[in-house]
Amino acid sequence: MELVVGVDVGGTATKAVLVDGDRVLAQATAPTPRPGPDVVAGVLDVVAGLVGELDPERAARVGVVVPGIVDDARGVAVWSENLGWRDVPFAALLADRLGRVTAFGHDVRAGGLAESAFGGGRGVRDSLFLPIGTGIAAALVLGGRVHDAGGYAGEIGHVDVGHDEPCACGRTGCLEAIASASAIARRYTARTGTPAEAADVARLVARDDADAVRVWDDAVQGLAHALAWTASVLAPEVVVVGGGLSAAGDVLLRPLTEALRERLTFQRRPRLVAAELGGLAGCRGAALLAAKRSALC
Amino acid sequence: MELVVGVDVGGTATKAVLVDGDRVLAQATAPTPRPGPDVVAGVLDVVAGLVGELDPERAARVGVVVPGIVDDARGVAVWSENLGWRDVPFAALLADRLGRVTAFGHDVRAGGLAESAFGGGRGVRDSLFLPIGTGIAAALVLGGRVHDAGGYAGEIGHVDVGHDEPCACGRTGCLEAIASASAIARRYTARTGTPAEAADVARLVARDDADAVRVWDDAVQGLAHALAWTASVLAPEVVVVGGGLSAAGDVLLRPLTEALRERLTFQRRPRLVAAELGGLAGCRGAALLAAKRSALC
Repeated sequence: MELVVGVDVGGTATKAVLVDGDRVLAQATAPTPRPGPDVVAGVLDVVAGLVGELDPERAARVGVVVPGIVDDARGVAVWSENLGWRDVPFAALLADRLGRVTAFGHDVRAGGLAESAFGGGRGVRDSLFLPIGTGIAAALVLGGRVHDAGGYAGEIGHVDVGHDEPCACGRTGCLEAIASASAIARRYTARTGTPAEAADVARLVARDDADAVRVWDDAVQGLAHALAWTASVLAPEVVVVGGGLSAAGDVLLRPLTEALRERLTFQRRPRLVAAELGGLAGCRGAALLAAKRSALC
Repeated sequence: MELVVGVDVGGTATKAVLVDGDRVLAQATAPTPRPGPDVVAGVLDVVAGLVGELDPERAARVGVVVPGIVDDARGVAVWSENLGWRDVPFAALLADRLGRVTAFGHDVRAGGLAESAFGGGRGVRDSLFLPIGTGIAAALVLGGRVHDAGGYAGEIGHVDVGHDEPCACGRTGCLEAIASASAIARRYTARTGTPAEAADVARLVARDDADAVRVWDDAVQGLAHALAWTASVLAPEVVVVGGGLSAAGDVLLRPLTEALRERLTFQRRPRLVAAELGGLAGCRGAALLAAKRSALC
């Protein structure tokens, strides 16, 4: 194999790994620049700094992934709400700045690729990677390939699961508005007046706290609704649940498996598993994108 | 190009075409045998008869598609409710019976392939073929390939669109139970006591009949719900609406386009178009499967 650096530009932190095939040799992190007129230049600086730190010999290929809407084929970051950019030709900017073989892509799709190669989705052709954190998105690994649809695929956080709470997108009923880690925290706090994170709510669920159980059950039913749809239309063999909420482990996966079972009849029933690569899924996927890229591109 | 026969085994009629590339040279039809212990032998006879009629010189490859759950990779018809079979190794039986290069697949996925190649979905990489008839299914053409998931993909008729009417599958809320051509007919008749087909209801909608408008609107909202999901998660560029209900044309497509527009915010908005190949989509797709198959298989 060959050395590759993978970089995942997150909303607050940018993470990087140096890998040799499926082995992670080193990792590094730096703060992501704040949104603003210089954010793109700032991100290029941070990426170049992390790459230089992990690979001072300049031996490695480099893959970089970012959040938002990303057009993989054109190498353009179409839009990011968190980072505040539009139509940034990152593939070209990165190749120019780093002066070596680079690849560019989307954080969640790259994470799905990595979980499919090395993590919870390995060994199957059709899987869904579902990171649940501040928001909810999905990477669809279908027939071994990640479906991108010009960057618009996988917005499962904004499907209607039949409730009347508003979502930041302007609609009501969105999965994300009831089942994201931030929605769980917000809804528990609104109900009880007690500030809490989703992890706190998960702990309270394990102790049968009635308010926590109610908020958690709403999230589980929303997720089961969305996964039943996915089972009918896409029929993945495995759903790899990731993001911050996956730390809840069986407190989440056990009732979700049961709620999904109740919603399916003849459909192929997916196995629900926890993601295995944690916060490194995105940068390991970025490294995979670079490893797959022909040196001639 | 090369001569190919495509055969579509339907619930009541079996249709066949002789094609040369994108040109249909001849077509033929025969009744499909009734379900029963001899249905598989009967279907093989009907297929052999139609192929012999269209291609007496035995020059052509042959593709055959059937309804139900079909495992394309293994060449097995896993299950069909209408035809009453389970685990029939059709690929092997057809090759044996016909003694030439054959291909075997699924009727709706083959129809999607044909609409993508020659019909309403041509020229785009990501499209959804949505035949609406007795039931509702979908073929997902993603990145130019049809997603099969071991035969379980595309069951969009059994996604929950939020109503309380029962479905034959055992659940409530299924798209098919409110928006299929048979559901529209059944619901109009239940409401008015007047027997009617979906085409009659469509004509009454054009004349502003209040009962017909109500039933039709329920169907349109159910379809818009399902297509909004699809736009968020799969983001097709085009939705090709086929099956019997597509004969309603703009009576269906215009309100459906509007209802879908109201449900989307940042998502890629698909174009809704009528299928162009009519009842021949399945057999033209069957011919495509055979044309793509290597003579060495």
